[in-house]
Amino acid sequence: MPGDPALFAYVLRLGDDSLILAQRLSELVGKAPELEEEMALINIALDLVGRARLLLTYAGEIEGAGRDEDALAYRRDVLDFRNHLLVELPNGDFAHTIGRLFLVAAFDEQRYGALRHSADARLREIADKAVKETAYHLRHAGEWVIRLGDGTEESHRRMQTALDRLWMYTGELFAPDSVDEEMARRRIGPDLRQLEEGWNRRVNAVLAEATLDRPQASFMQRGGKDGRMHTEHLGYILAEMQFLQRAYPDATSW
Amino acid sequence: MPGDPALFAYVLRLGDDSLILAQRLSELVGKAPELEEEMALINIALDLVGRARLLLTYAGEIEGAGRDEDALAYRRDVLDFRNHLLVELPNGDFAHTIGRLFLVAAFDEQRYGALRHSADARLREIADKAVKETAYHLRHAGEWVIRLGDGTEESHRRMQTALDRLWMYTGELFAPDSVDEEMARRRIGPDLRQLEEGWNRRVNAVLAEATLDRPQASFMQRGGKDGRMHTEHLGYILAEMQFLQRAYPDATSW
Repeated sequence: MPGDPALFAYVLRLGDDSLILAQRLSELVGKAPELEEEMALINIALDLVGRARLLLTYAGEIEGAGRDEDALAYRRDVLDFRNHLLVELPNGDFAHTIGRLFLVAAFDEQRYGALRHSADARLREIADKAVKETAYHLRHAGEWVIRLGDGTEESHRRMQTALDRLWMYTGELFAPDSVDEEMARRRIGPDLRQLEEGWNRRVNAVLAEATLDRPQASFMQRGGKDGRMHTEHLGYILAEMQFLQRAYPDATSW
Repeated sequence: MPGDPALFAYVLRLGDDSLILAQRLSELVGKAPELEEEMALINIALDLVGRARLLLTYAGEIEGAGRDEDALAYRRDVLDFRNHLLVELPNGDFAHTIGRLFLVAAFDEQRYGALRHSADARLREIADKAVKETAYHLRHAGEWVIRLGDGTEESHRRMQTALDRLWMYTGELFAPDSVDEEMARRRIGPDLRQLEEGWNRRVNAVLAEATLDRPQASFMQRGGKDGRMHTEHLGYILAEMQFLQRAYPDATSW
């Protein structure tokens, strides 16, 4: 229904998570360990852009103020984005890249798995598609985590370091705020504690097979999904994105 | 046959054209005029990476020195790349980006169209696949050239400027060197003069519909496909690409 602020905020979070992670993954072309991996990452980015389009289009309809997918993608400031902090972090080395993808995909597996049963029909439809794609993203990233963790001393060290650094951004995924609570009350969104249980099971199983230690965070970063604070990284991503309709960026001189 | 230097050089050119253009297109995620365009460009980049993989794998087999697709993609220096200069130019503004894609796709339409009848069975197979993909690339880019050329005063000006700047890089596409001549003699590669006629017909038709003038170059840049000279842009692209097997780039600090 038009002007439903909680639903708008919730759908925007889903859309922003997809959009910002797609941006990050697309930066990896030319930087993956092998061409086959480049294709896999481009394919995942493509899934995420498609998902972002569906979600941002829906968000614009909910808002009822005439903003379409492109207006929402390209014409919001940093402070108006609602993605989790985890998706905006720089790619870092390949271990960081694939570790972050793994943690996010494991979360999406839970999140979209639950949204297939949402009271909201549009989210059910989007979730049905997302669940299939996410199964591939998670399998792909998980296999890399295992290969790197249970690999050479060097790859093991890098994978452990990456997870240790990423861990403080995982708490935000499961910390319910007022939007999450309203969505759960209305049976539109999931119970984050149930998501956390499923996520822990999946992550722990992969870490065990990868011979990696589950990190322990002394504190967790927050502020992404409610827009209170974003890292400087999001500002950088958005500075790269163009705000335009019929104007185009200046040509680089050559 | 192992160690066929002319065939190796020719297949490498095809592979490098695909690989380097895919790199350029992937830089556009987050910079396209609209999300729908981002998806189109990502899809085109995906086609090109797939094509590069097939061609570089074949090149490695021809060389018979144990280099696979990844060794060729990631472990050659600037001076060993054999792409045409046109594909390594920076994206510039969107008019430059889509103008370059149009000119290259029109060339690929001719080139792979001819290679479907190559005496080389592997190239025939690769060409069959490339022809289908290229038809989409060309239609997509051509429609944008028309939309921008026959658009606003601003978009028309930008599109004409882009074409004027790109034009000096088109001559290299049709200037046969010893590799082209040997390939044509052996019925493996096409007659570049025939390609040029077909390319001119296609390009002139689109320019006319776009109300754009066909540029006139007082001279043409050369040196890409024979490796004599590459622009500094290729060095930049390759510096971004990683030379690695089991080592990974250093994490950016965060």
